[in-house]
Amino acid sequence: MSTLKVLGICGSLRRASTNMGLLRYAKAHAPAGIQIEIADLGQLPFYNADISEKPAAVQQLLAQLASADALLLACPEYNYSMAPALKNALDWASREPDNALLAGKAVAIVGAGGGMGTSRAQYHLRQTCVYLDLHPLNRPEVFANAFAGGFDAEGNLTDERLQGLVVQQLQALQAWASQLSA
Amino acid sequence: MSTLKVLGICGSLRRASTNMGLLRYAKAHAPAGIQIEIADLGQLPFYNADISEKPAAVQQLLAQLASADALLLACPEYNYSMAPALKNALDWASREPDNALLAGKAVAIVGAGGGMGTSRAQYHLRQTCVYLDLHPLNRPEVFANAFAGGFDAEGNLTDERLQGLVVQQLQALQAWASQLSA
Amino acid sequence: MSTLKVLGICGSLRRASTNMGLLRYAKAHAPAGIQIEIADLGQLPFYNADISEKPAAVQQLLAQLASADALLLACPEYNYSMAPALKNALDWASREPDNALLAGKAVAIVGAGGGMGTSRAQYHLRQTCVYLDLHPLNRPEVFANAFAGGFDAEGNLTDERLQGLVVQQLQALQAWASQLSA
Amino acid sequence: MSTLKVLGICGSLRRASTNMGLLRYAKAHAPAGIQIEIADLGQLPFYNADISEKPAAVQQLLAQLASADALLLACPEYNYSMAPALKNALDWASREPDNALLAGKAVAIVGAGGGMGTSRAQYHLRQTCVYLDLHPLNRPEVFANAFAGGFDAEGNLTDERLQGLVVQQLQALQAWASQLSA
Repeated sequence: MSTLKVLGICGSLRRASTNMGLLRYAKAHAPAGIQIEIADLGQLPFYNADISEKPAAVQQLLAQLASADALLLACPEYNYSMAPALKNALDWASREPDNALLAGKAVAIVGAGGGMGTSRAQYHLRQTCVYLDLHPLNRPEVFANAFAGGFDAEGNLTDERLQGLVVQQLQALQAWASQLSA
Repeated sequence: MSTLKVLGICGSLRRASTNMGLLRYAKAHAPAGIQIEIADLGQLPFYNADISEKPAAVQQLLAQLASADALLLACPEYNYSMAPALKNALDWASREPDNALLAGKAVAIVGAGGGMGTSRAQYHLRQTCVYLDLHPLNRPEVFANAFAGGFDAEGNLTDERLQGLVVQQLQALQAWASQLSA
Repeated sequence: MSTLKVLGICGSLRRASTNMGLLRYAKAHAPAGIQIEIADLGQLPFYNADISEKPAAVQQLLAQLASADALLLACPEYNYSMAPALKNALDWASREPDNALLAGKAVAIVGAGGGMGTSRAQYHLRQTCVYLDLHPLNRPEVFANAFAGGFDAEGNLTDERLQGLVVQQLQALQAWASQLSA
Repeated sequence: MSTLKVLGICGSLRRASTNMGLLRYAKAHAPAGIQIEIADLGQLPFYNADISEKPAAVQQLLAQLASADALLLACPEYNYSMAPALKNALDWASREPDNALLAGKAVAIVGAGGGMGTSRAQYHLRQTCVYLDLHPLNRPEVFANAFAGGFDAEGNLTDERLQGLVVQQLQALQAWASQLSA
């Protein structure tokens, strides 16, 4: 079985983001057969149909998506919905002819936030996946309550139960991507 | 009765935006007792908790919100959810102490897009309004199918039924804001 | 100030329902100026446009709604959305001419369930309230994790923090209904 | 390739239901390799955890689900969310050990209603599918505006474009179920 190439995209831009911490943990502890790269959204402008020439940051994201087999989306919750930076990355990706960068790809979603673990934002993200023709995993869902601990001051994931869950989700993603590509 | 000061915020950044066209029409045809100003999101950066000093564009938006009695939100639909620029403006506004710029204000929502008239995005926006303690009008809802016409090439609203509906919604907003502030 | 008459409606039909427990607690501890009656949905049939003569259970519900100033909805979560019995009660109520039983009424929502406290169902219920022209309170939201305790074997609410929150929400409902009727 | 056995479930109980009309059309025009049976929800009681012995109508539904490879769900929109009868059928089905009647099955969703074609309800249904571990098709989505015609007085589908779309969706369901079971 060939390696599953996964692109991690994080909706939070701050340095000590716990959502980025989830992606870092996933990347460092990916099961055999999974290779994770993490996108950098720091320079990505807001999508605007008037921008005729794609900025370098957009081109880089699109190139990373083109070579990814599956996505790992770290979905913060801002005011009961998605973080604009994550949604904006998907919006840029959606403008390619035939939706070629996204159509049919498997997706895993994680999120760190308050008591609801960003679930309110994750269901909005799942609705977006319908249009983008992405296939998010049904389970396990990863809802981290970062307000209750489980992360250090740099946003690194330290909670053992969640660490196990992140790895378990990657295994499920591997199986799901394999099922979809059969 | 005093004048209702309304801030219009548009989620689309392109020049010929039909969503901005809805706001322009509203501003130009506001009923007596309503005064509409339109925010400029063109320079607003993505919200990031690491940004300690608010950029000028953020400060301007917050000042406009501080002096607004109510909001008129033009909500495009990108990939079955909100446009990041609109969500981002609300995210910035939500960080003020005691949610002072938003709490309790009346809101009207309009949107121009495809066959569903941005309804999928508008219901996500309504969920965000719960946390922001905003009070969106229940009706009339304004769903413009711009793919079927009704706007000129600059995004100006030309459809008479929709023009009437926009004005009717502003009247409902006026009554709703008055009810809430009684 | 006159008494606020509130109709409690519970989406769970089982005897030891924790959602009904929330309503019982609210009824027994309603602040001065609030009087709560609880509907019985046990005999309510599924709404069906072919039913030309309203069954007695429907007539009783509609009569209770007619004399209620506000609603207290106990919203279980079944499979990430609303319990059919609650939605069905609202569907029956919505068929009256001019939406006369619901339009403009204030609503408070509570829910007891798993770790998310029925939040996924409550946001669906809030979307339904848009069409019904109901005005749900923005806050406080009441999300009870009954799997973690807080209720006895009969479904009675025993957790002190939640007891306080239920009373606080009723006070907010009273203020909200008063604001809306001013 | 073996025949795909599909169970159609309709959320509307009235005789001339346009949603049932969509299922009838699908059943009569199913592509080669698809066989559609339609469930009868007329006698299904509300799910209630106190009901220890399953009524005959429940047993029949569960038996039909057990022998189905995939589902075709006709999703009306009542007050911006799902019809209780459809949700209730899924709730009954979800109580079997290991979610054995639903887990992993492919789903197609159709709906007939007003101008939004029941889309508001369909996205709620999709959220329910996450927990039920069902896999709804991303596309084509079937949104029928029955208020604009396209059905006869008995609820039969007469619009040619929609007829073609229903068949096209069944073909997509066949391919999707095949992909999932590979």
